[in-house]
Amino acid sequence: MTTSDQKITPWEVAAAGGVDYEKLMRDFGAQAIDAALIARIERATGRRAHVFLRRGLFYSHRDLEAILEAHEAGRPFYLYTGRGPSSDSLHFGHLVPFMFTKYLQEAFDVPLVVQMTDDEKFLWKGHSLAEVHKFLIENVKDIIACGFDVQKTFIFSNFAYMGHMYPLVVQIQRLISAHTAAAAFGFDDQANVGKWAFPATQAAPSFSSAFPHIFGGRVDVPCLIPCAIDQDPYFRVTRDVAPRLGLLKPSLIHSKFFPALQGHHTKMGSSDPNSAIFLTDEPAVVADKVKKHAFSGGGATKEEQLAHGANLEVDVAYQWLRFFLDDDDRVDDIGRRYAKGDPTMLTGHVKQILIDTLNDMIARHKKARAQLTDQIVATFMAVREM
Amino acid sequence: MTTSDQKITPWEVAAAGGVDYEKLMRDFGAQAIDAALIARIERATGRRAHVFLRRGLFYSHRDLEAILEAHEAGRPFYLYTGRGPSSDSLHFGHLVPFMFTKYLQEAFDVPLVVQMTDDEKFLWKGHSLAEVHKFLIENVKDIIACGFDVQKTFIFSNFAYMGHMYPLVVQIQRLISAHTAAAAFGFDDQANVGKWAFPATQAAPSFSSAFPHIFGGRVDVPCLIPCAIDQDPYFRVTRDVAPRLGLLKPSLIHSKFFPALQGHHTKMGSSDPNSAIFLTDEPAVVADKVKKHAFSGGGATKEEQLAHGANLEVDVAYQWLRFFLDDDDRVDDIGRRYAKGDPTMLTGHVKQILIDTLNDMIARHKKARAQLTDQIVATFMAVREM
Repeated sequence: MTTSDQKITPWEVAAAGGVDYEKLMRDFGAQAIDAALIARIERATGRRAHVFLRRGLFYSHRDLEAILEAHEAGRPFYLYTGRGPSSDSLHFGHLVPFMFTKYLQEAFDVPLVVQMTDDEKFLWKGHSLAEVHKFLIENVKDIIACGFDVQKTFIFSNFAYMGHMYPLVVQIQRLISAHTAAAAFGFDDQANVGKWAFPATQAAPSFSSAFPHIFGGRVDVPCLIPCAIDQDPYFRVTRDVAPRLGLLKPSLIHSKFFPALQGHHTKMGSSDPNSAIFLTDEPAVVADKVKKHAFSGGGATKEEQLAHGANLEVDVAYQWLRFFLDDDDRVDDIGRRYAKGDPTMLTGHVKQILIDTLNDMIARHKKARAQLTDQIVATFMAVREM
Repeated sequence: MTTSDQKITPWEVAAAGGVDYEKLMRDFGAQAIDAALIARIERATGRRAHVFLRRGLFYSHRDLEAILEAHEAGRPFYLYTGRGPSSDSLHFGHLVPFMFTKYLQEAFDVPLVVQMTDDEKFLWKGHSLAEVHKFLIENVKDIIACGFDVQKTFIFSNFAYMGHMYPLVVQIQRLISAHTAAAAFGFDDQANVGKWAFPATQAAPSFSSAFPHIFGGRVDVPCLIPCAIDQDPYFRVTRDVAPRLGLLKPSLIHSKFFPALQGHHTKMGSSDPNSAIFLTDEPAVVADKVKKHAFSGGGATKEEQLAHGANLEVDVAYQWLRFFLDDDDRVDDIGRRYAKGDPTMLTGHVKQILIDTLNDMIARHKKARAQLTDQIVATFMAVREM
């Protein structure tokens, strides 16, 4: 989607003055997640909404009500998310959809399929098959370490699984003209033909018939897709073709982009290591990156901070804490003191709280990851009844 | 390939004044099969060349010498041909590449892979998956009935086999831009994205790495592709990408189109049942079609035929006999008498010889087909060591 001031595709996020998420949602024709919808989610799941919902990181949706209706009526649904394995290690931005998906899986107790788009990364990047395979396995370990339920989670590589869903993929391909693909994804005639065909491959897992080993051939199990909003073009096209295949339109729940250390104006990227904290970063590296690169909304000097306080909206350390600290009272307290210029909560204090929080998360992630055996990875990726 | 007077693509053959095969070969950059090359094939195989070679139905090639060199040096090669299952029954035009491939398999004693492009037919035609599957099985039976060696023949459906070759297909996709595909195949932006991607799927079996169960992972077994010349664009693209993948360019041997009953100006088509003889046609239907529709090069009246004789070049019954009668003396005798206006070889006589020949071939085909069990079909299509 290109508008006068922002261009958002699955491969490019460019917005000079920061992404206008409300406009993006309206342009895409999605709906806002409001307080009433969050309350309904809490009633349906019997637990408090995830911090990403309460604090607006997941902020927009398509047909989420249909999923809640199914759940409230005791009918099954499933979750679908994915990742393109293009680097050895995940960063915190990559972690956001998986942390949220883990919450959804726990809260609703439903199956989850995770598509690893190794084919996409091969088609878009210059990597060899062997490199992409290495990224795949490393990334799968990071995903498993988020704590998914092995009894209800199927993680698959497109290279390995295509044989199982190829007829469905081709059915979808037949309904997407090159004209449609060019409009939705911005492809041009220099793009290779694999890129042109790929949207059907990302669409296919939106339909339960892609997973006969999980759903026993049922075509009527609805799908909920948690994803960053830049993935929406794939699923707009998917929702367009669904009725023509006699299949259910998938529902979506969209997140904003997790802000780069440098601020909200772009998406965190693996290409600039200083824009992101990786799950492999050592504690001293984390501290150094946050101290040096996290954009501060505080005063330029201590005196200015004490006089005027901080602008929380643009302060990256505070914004990250909003998403990673579940304790509402503590977040409120940090924000209140920092905003008003309290000398016990200067930029350095907020950054130190973030550093400790991130290093704690990384330590827990590393520990969980270290316990993964090849056998566990193979089990998550096995085509098996669930 | 479009030139001023003919347009030949894998989906369209249009040539107002009849196909100019020599021009097509030159335009495509292929080489003629000459007497010396046929003699070399005969030496290499220790048997007489197939009638389709001797009489010029297979008339053009790419790098056939490389295949002969491999064979002469005792190195392996394999054959690859295919069929798009778009109708219940094959006609004699469909049979030509399989009859010739059977000869090649016997003469060189080599493995054969047959790609059934059920995905292609689904993408190009309006059929359902179920219809295409029915065509697939019926067509596979017709192919097996041509007499292939079950020990050395692997017949596969793309829908079923894609899982085994998908990484190779994606490697090829990455090297074909939409620009290249549009130029080679004439796709436009109304074509669905599956069509754009499909050429890589037809390319993949040209490389022995597509069949690890046959070649044990070897990437250096050269491939010879017998096909009608309209399939050449696929393999020009394939040959272009091969060196970039570190793989061997496939060799090709091209046939002319088998003439429709109405004459040489177009390709025999399933869409006009009177242009073709089907392997399911009853003897009386065959007789009726040949008598009514086979274009005659004979005189308009008996008197004219006796006075001036026949034009063998345009006489469809004679041309078909050239391809289906192996006995050179008999073909020469028929041609000589028919051309000079001998009263014992009028158009009706030639047509009757053709009718008897076709009905005999059909009867033998039906008998071979009737002996096929589901088990035999399953064996030909099984992914198995060979």
